Amino acid sequence: IAKEVAKLLDMKAQLDADEGKQKFVLKTPKGTRDFGPKEMAIRERAFKAIISCFKRHGAEVIDTPVFELKETLTGKYGEDSKLIYDLKDQGGELLSLRYDLTVPFARYLAMNKITNIKRYHIAKVYRRDNPAMTRGRYREFYQCDFDIAGQFDPMIPDAECLKIVHEILSDLQLGDFVIKVNDRRILDGMFAVCGVPDSKFRTICSSVDKLDKVPWEEVRSEMVGEKGLSPEAADRIGEYVQLHGGLELIERLLQDPKLSQNKLAKEGLGEMKLLFEYLTLFGITGKISFDLSLARGLDYYTGVIFEAVLLQQEKQHVEEPVSVGSVAGGGRYDGLVGMFDPKGRKVPCVGVSIGIERIFSILEQKLEASEEKIRTTETQVLVASAQKKLLEERLKLISELWDAGIKAEMLYKKNPKLLNQLQYCEDTGIPLVAIVGEQELKDGVVKLRIVATREEVNVRRESLVEEIRIRTSQC
Amino acid sequence: IAKEVAKLLDMKAQLDADEGKQKFVLKTPKGTRDFGPKEMAIRERAFKAIISCFKRHGAEVIDTPVFELKETLTGKYGEDSKLIYDLKDQGGELLSLRYDLTVPFARYLAMNKITNIKRYHIAKVYRRDNPAMTRGRYREFYQCDFDIAGQFDPMIPDAECLKIVHEILSDLQLGDFVIKVNDRRILDGMFAVCGVPDSKFRTICSSVDKLDKVPWEEVRSEMVGEKGLSPEAADRIGEYVQLHGGLELIERLLQDPKLSQNKLAKEGLGEMKLLFEYLTLFGITGKISFDLSLARGLDYYTGVIFEAVLLQQEKQHVEEPVSVGSVAGGGRYDGLVGMFDPKGRKVPCVGVSIGIERIFSILEQKLEASEEKIRTTETQVLVASAQKKLLEERLKLISELWDAGIKAEMLYKKNPKLLNQLQYCEDTGIPLVAIVGEQELKDGVVKLRIVATREEVNVRRESLVEEIRIRTSQC
Repeated sequence: IAKEVAKLLDMKAQLDADEGKQKFVLKTPKGTRDFGPKEMAIRERAFKAIISCFKRHGAEVIDTPVFELKETLTGKYGEDSKLIYDLKDQGGELLSLRYDLTVPFARYLAMNKITNIKRYHIAKVYRRDNPAMTRGRYREFYQCDFDIAGQFDPMIPDAECLKIVHEILSDLQLGDFVIKVNDRRILDGMFAVCGVPDSKFRTICSSVDKLDKVPWEEVRSEMVGEKGLSPEAADRIGEYVQLHGGLELIERLLQDPKLSQNKLAKEGLGEMKLLFEYLTLFGITGKISFDLSLARGLDYYTGVIFEAVLLQQEKQHVEEPVSVGSVAGGGRYDGLVGMFDPKGRKVPCVGVSIGIERIFSILEQKLEASEEKIRTTETQVLVASAQKKLLEERLKLISELWDAGIKAEMLYKKNPKLLNQLQYCEDTGIPLVAIVGEQELKDGVVKLRIVATREEVNVRRESLVEEIRIRTSQC
Repeated sequence: IAKEVAKLLDMKAQLDADEGKQKFVLKTPKGTRDFGPKEMAIRERAFKAIISCFKRHGAEVIDTPVFELKETLTGKYGEDSKLIYDLKDQGGELLSLRYDLTVPFARYLAMNKITNIKRYHIAKVYRRDNPAMTRGRYREFYQCDFDIAGQFDPMIPDAECLKIVHEILSDLQLGDFVIKVNDRRILDGMFAVCGVPDSKFRTICSSVDKLDKVPWEEVRSEMVGEKGLSPEAADRIGEYVQLHGGLELIERLLQDPKLSQNKLAKEGLGEMKLLFEYLTLFGITGKISFDLSLARGLDYYTGVIFEAVLLQQEKQHVEEPVSVGSVAGGGRYDGLVGMFDPKGRKVPCVGVSIGIERIFSILEQKLEASEEKIRTTETQVLVASAQKKLLEERLKLISELWDAGIKAEMLYKKNPKLLNQLQYCEDTGIPLVAIVGEQELKDGVVKLRIVATREEVNVRRESLVEEIRIRTSQC
């Protein structure tokens, strides 16, 4: 019997192995996606707008490795640390995929002893979060970061970061938006005057951070139930976090009998006032809201924090409105570089991160709705022939065109049909066809066909490059 | 005594822990590096040349995730599989960092049932190799891939790939180079007629692949000693692999009494002849060498293979010549997509990969030698003031400039000294300074200073944008 059982188990193992082979899954990892040519065209458009804004503000660009030493990321992200991807220990150093671009930036500054830089960095970051891809939430996603590091006069770089968010969101035409602004010092001061013990600041801050997704009642019961805050303290917080407004709210809170007694809160409110003065000079206060409920989860913020939110579109214009939340966020983190410096030397920093995936979702949907046909190549001319046995002549001509810098394609067939060659132009948006034929070769000309109008002209071979350039100069 | 020992051990553990804390290492992972603004400027130059070549040949662009399901990469890289980075099993799918861009491309084609595409992809890949960073060998490095997928007439797309390598290496002015070409079918046919058993083809191929680094004698002893090949077979291989040349060598081998009897070799040689005919039409055979010692390690090649090698520079021109090897490689892989397709449907592919890190090393060294000053920003104008208390006026003016699309910076100080502002322009290469002062404000003008000539002109505020555009139009 034992022998028979062993035989059966063997057979079962064999079957499982076969099944395993067939079960090979053809997919990208959970929470990731490919970008095909169309998606890339949209992505490049968005990047172009963002990069040209960063360059307009005089930023340099850097890049860092996709993984860091595990210890570099340790202790920087609070409760979110569990979302970090680790690499397998294959001998050697312990590594993790970067979770954002801010911590690698701080590591870069400390490592190279840089105390003064304005840089941007556009790259993918990784979070083992629950993906919600239709809403643009992925496990692999791009961040577009702009940061200013250095010891400067208060709120000047901070105001520029907000100006940048305003410029980019306006430029991309994503619809109406609001940029919420707060300050960690105001939050901490508020917690203090509400009677939150020092040791609970961070965790209560995490609770407040959820207010954009869940109603106050739920946040309150988390504070009191899970986190052991007194109901009175929670209620006092509740009164503050409903407040949002502009300069007049800042003035009012500066007069608030409790807040004004708190050193941190007073400092934060004073600088918030200065920030609003600068934003007024920039003419962008219309889209800025000082909002006491804005907390932002990450541990490393020390001053101003902000987050840009797209406002719901009018229903009649969009078929299925993409539900989007925050598309940009950032703040001041004056202590992060010091955490890496052997002597703890601080480099004050402020920066903004544009969350591009949600923006892609909207741009993709807008494009689909508009039925605009997007080209995925820049080819100016197709080298074609109407007769057979002209492959070599086509190769010779296309080589001349490439060497002259013309963007040219041909079909990879010995004897393609003219109809197929013209169809290829229609499908891919190539505006011109250079047709070689026996007669044209004898005459030293090439027949140039304009796809849109079906017009055909004979062009002398030595003028062909110039003629193509002129006819496609508006492309 | 036991108690005392326990105490001592505790103390030792404590000490170790403290030491661990202090031992925090401030570095990037082994085999990786940061790109600072200067390195990025060089990198962007190289990318620009490569991308414009890919676009000139009508390629679309795609992107894929940095990691793939582990099983997607399994069985594609032969002996190199041990160099793949795996991610830690944190629950969920088993993942690996991509090893190249070719396998993800094949996965993408099979998954989306694409049978016809010409695309490029520029992205980082990961190999747990022994880094040699001075020679441009890293564990994280860029590949710039161009591939043509689809059923076409023989050697037309293959010839275009070689044309692309030729164009890019010429354009980047890296010095003299040669593109070695061979065909897996010629190699396999050669192994067969030399008496290598079928089962040893792959491993003997790996040995031949080392011929660019080690002399024939060493390769021979590996074949005979480690891999158990007969000395006679090895010697026969030895005769073939020294051969390299052009069309006349192909013709000679087509007459070779042994090779011409082998079906695979004959097929490979026939197509090699066709390839050389097309390359002659492209006018690039001068840099192409049909080389029977070229093998390339990866398992997935099925036809033409090639590799571009930079030739050593003349000693007198370069102080310390960077020792570089292969800067581009590729070939035909007609079976790879079929490995992913549930029904095994094949999509023939041929492609080329430009190894950009070695090219960076050379460009960096060339730039250092030339003492050319490279700008890392594109800022057109610095908004400055000569007097105190003009921060608000500077903010107002710079905001106007940004909104008009001018690239502008200012110092983030309330009252910066004019000298410091001018020095900043010298340091960063900003060509213009827009100076606001009491008198200029009253007169409705801005003083525009040309940094290079120290010339100063008063420009009416409403003409400032236009004036800056004209004066920086050559930038």
